[in-house]
Amino acid sequence: MPDAPYVPIAWESDHIRLLDQTLLPHEERYVELRGVEETAEAIRTMRVRGAPAIGITAAYGLALAARLAPDGPDGSVLKAVERAAAALATTRPTAVNLEWALRRVVARVAATEGDGSARAAAVEEAQRIHEEQREADWWIAEAGAALIEGAEAVLTHCNTGPLATGGHGTALGVVIEAHRARGLQHVYVDETRPRLQGARLTTWELDRFDVPFELIIDGAAAALLASGRVGAVVVGADRIARNGDTANKIGTLGAAIAANYFGVPFYVAAPVSTIDPDAASADAIEIEERAGDEVLSIGASAIAPAGTAVLNPAFDVTPASLVTAIVTERGVLEPPYETSIGTVLAGFARR
Amino acid sequence: MPDAPYVPIAWESDHIRLLDQTLLPHEERYVELRGVEETAEAIRTMRVRGAPAIGITAAYGLALAARLAPDGPDGSVLKAVERAAAALATTRPTAVNLEWALRRVVARVAATEGDGSARAAAVEEAQRIHEEQREADWWIAEAGAALIEGAEAVLTHCNTGPLATGGHGTALGVVIEAHRARGLQHVYVDETRPRLQGARLTTWELDRFDVPFELIIDGAAAALLASGRVGAVVVGADRIARNGDTANKIGTLGAAIAANYFGVPFYVAAPVSTIDPDAASADAIEIEERAGDEVLSIGASAIAPAGTAVLNPAFDVTPASLVTAIVTERGVLEPPYETSIGTVLAGFARR
Repeated sequence: MPDAPYVPIAWESDHIRLLDQTLLPHEERYVELRGVEETAEAIRTMRVRGAPAIGITAAYGLALAARLAPDGPDGSVLKAVERAAAALATTRPTAVNLEWALRRVVARVAATEGDGSARAAAVEEAQRIHEEQREADWWIAEAGAALIEGAEAVLTHCNTGPLATGGHGTALGVVIEAHRARGLQHVYVDETRPRLQGARLTTWELDRFDVPFELIIDGAAAALLASGRVGAVVVGADRIARNGDTANKIGTLGAAIAANYFGVPFYVAAPVSTIDPDAASADAIEIEERAGDEVLSIGASAIAPAGTAVLNPAFDVTPASLVTAIVTERGVLEPPYETSIGTVLAGFARR
Repeated sequence: MPDAPYVPIAWESDHIRLLDQTLLPHEERYVELRGVEETAEAIRTMRVRGAPAIGITAAYGLALAARLAPDGPDGSVLKAVERAAAALATTRPTAVNLEWALRRVVARVAATEGDGSARAAAVEEAQRIHEEQREADWWIAEAGAALIEGAEAVLTHCNTGPLATGGHGTALGVVIEAHRARGLQHVYVDETRPRLQGARLTTWELDRFDVPFELIIDGAAAALLASGRVGAVVVGADRIARNGDTANKIGTLGAAIAANYFGVPFYVAAPVSTIDPDAASADAIEIEERAGDEVLSIGASAIAPAGTAVLNPAFDVTPASLVTAIVTERGVLEPPYETSIGTVLAGFARR
């Protein structure tokens, strides 16, 4: 599959070049992140979002930390990288890729301690994480597109395209590839309140890839599924437990329950790095609660009385029993997930 | 139960005084409707919305038409009222109360033809429809509050308070009464995209009645239901078929499916006038499609790229199998609805 006609995350030797997703779709502006604090701020304020893209950006943030670390005694680069990792780890709590990417870069730097290559190692490891994501996305897109072959239309939630992964995308990569090569005609895009990633970002990406789509409000998904027009639901994941329970953008659970009710297959597309080996089930997954302001105003418009109390969980958990299959770069995982995920995790750990 | 501390619809001899719901919650401004076209415009642009409130406003619109009809030969008032009814009938397609209220006023005027009381009859019939709604709301609130006694928290969708009915409200009347007299502690309010009636209107009404609540995005309803915090879902209806299939604001179906999945009772609260005797099932219910602009911009803010294609159904249909009970002013209807609705309709027609 061809590369995206835009580059959401790029390493530029002394800075990260990042497409500012908070300004899309109205403005395509790139920001330059030159330090750890700027990188943390970009993740926290969602200039970059999407679990894999967060992981890649954070990894490059450690590359910046290594680059900026003062010359000093053995281990001073490692100390700076560890300090930066601690700061970056707290920016978003739900995406497992963040922790995982930070650990990989720290471990790589730690392994080089003393031989003078710590700074280069940090950059290399971040670039490797980025490149692996691109490859994983490619395999996911191929396998997912084959899986939904025959579907004329699909429904997706949130944004899982190149913007979200820095590569080809996960669920949206599947959708784009299915349109390119597997006969998919139409995509229904949940607007994905409160941050409207579907309305703002997925529409923008599908437009750039010339994939026909219609935007719907999240509340219209059930009626759309009832209509029989949707052949499959395809979503990404922020964290997957070992039993297949899937944390993803708030609203996913409702779509999964409705898909199940109307007999429409519900697919999760995510790299193996999204599977949390430490989470036996969803009970071990922390769900980020975000500020109510996100709900209460849209752009310049307040939508509710001032001071309105809001409950604003950023993610929900879809139980494994509602997930038809999980599409990864290591193949399509099917229930029972304890077994299929166990097998793929064993291979992943050995790598 | 006490009256609402605001009067959404009032007949003022030569005009309708209407609280403009498009300006809430930021501004409490009343408009004066002095003719049929203004009344039609107010319904079409949703200055007044909610199936019963639309019916009452349209009925008062016919009172205006009768009032403004020129003196002339016998039947000239009836002709003016019939013309106005035809114009008002096309303003919104899904709410059955609109048709029903218009038919009642036209029939009443037709019955007085020739005796000089046509103008007074139109006003009287419109006021009677309004008064009957207040009474129906009262019974619904009582019966519904008794039904959900023991629930500490409920979830509701859209707006079904006094604003929506011109009386005490339907589903929100139940909620307000349950809070006043039946131990209800907390209400979760779906924001209800795209028009945000929950965020804009239900929050405003609950605030005026001092009922504690939290606003959620529609997509968070499933996760909330999964959490076990919700004792019941209570919604209104725009049209109910004879088999219990219920057309209501888009997003209701998803909440019903999720409530069913998690074993939470799902109640519809609506006056008997909302039941369409001509609809055997949902197949006979027309679902209004509204313009995509409603989705694409919120206040002054565009949320998606210009020209984005949108699918924007205003209502969805919840199958009767997902409805635990229907609370009406003639009692709580339970499955099988063919029987319970048949019985209540027979009584309603005889009145």
